[in-house]
Amino acid sequence: MKSLLLIAHGSRRAESNDEVRALAAKLSALSQGFDSVSCAFLELAEPSIPDGIEACVQQGASEIVLLPYFLSAGRHVAADIPALVQPKQAQYPKITIELRPYLGAATALPQVILNLVE
Amino acid sequence: MKSLLLIAHGSRRAESNDEVRALAAKLSALSQGFDSVSCAFLELAEPSIPDGIEACVQQGASEIVLLPYFLSAGRHVAADIPALVQPKQAQYPKITIELRPYLGAATALPQVILNLVE
Repeated sequence: MKSLLLIAHGSRRAESNDEVRALAAKLSALSQGFDSVSCAFLELAEPSIPDGIEACVQQGASEIVLLPYFLSAGRHVAADIPALVQPKQAQYPKITIELRPYLGAATALPQVILNLVE
Repeated sequence: MKSLLLIAHGSRRAESNDEVRALAAKLSALSQGFDSVSCAFLELAEPSIPDGIEACVQQGASEIVLLPYFLSAGRHVAADIPALVQPKQAQYPKITIELRPYLGAATALPQVILNLVE
């Protein structure tokens, strides 16, 4: 079982967190390759990243792909998120828990932006 | 002359701001529909949004498209950015200065995310 976990920053605004949850639901409906799609938050919202990973494990995931929903490679992407993921990787060595590059690093993004505005 | 102005939050990390500038340069190279692509920052980096718009005007833009490079519809997107754009629209009524929806609202984004991870 393959799970996608979208990792967002989290906001004091409930609407922003709900926007991320709605995106996860949309991804879940669209996805061909993942059995489940959920989201987790670095701070200010629930579930936390470790709790989000744990929920995937408890649902029976054998492979968990983590995508940071961030546009720039700040401290959160470079340090804070990996620091929360590594203990779960150590805890579940038989489960593939793979932290992908953040969304802003996607090579397709410039063309997506141009398609949006042109 | 048509200009695209990418609006980012701005960061204390110089690398994050440079990443936005590099994206603007990439968009400029790829774009078919814009004569120029530049960027501006809400805070913590230069140029400011009014200065970025002003630079487009001084370069001779007759149409300026502003794209907020943000993933969620927080206060910045809903209030702070429009409040900085409106005085420039009032100052240059003969120039089309159009503030587009933020990147996170793009309907293509869910599929882009899936293409990235699947």
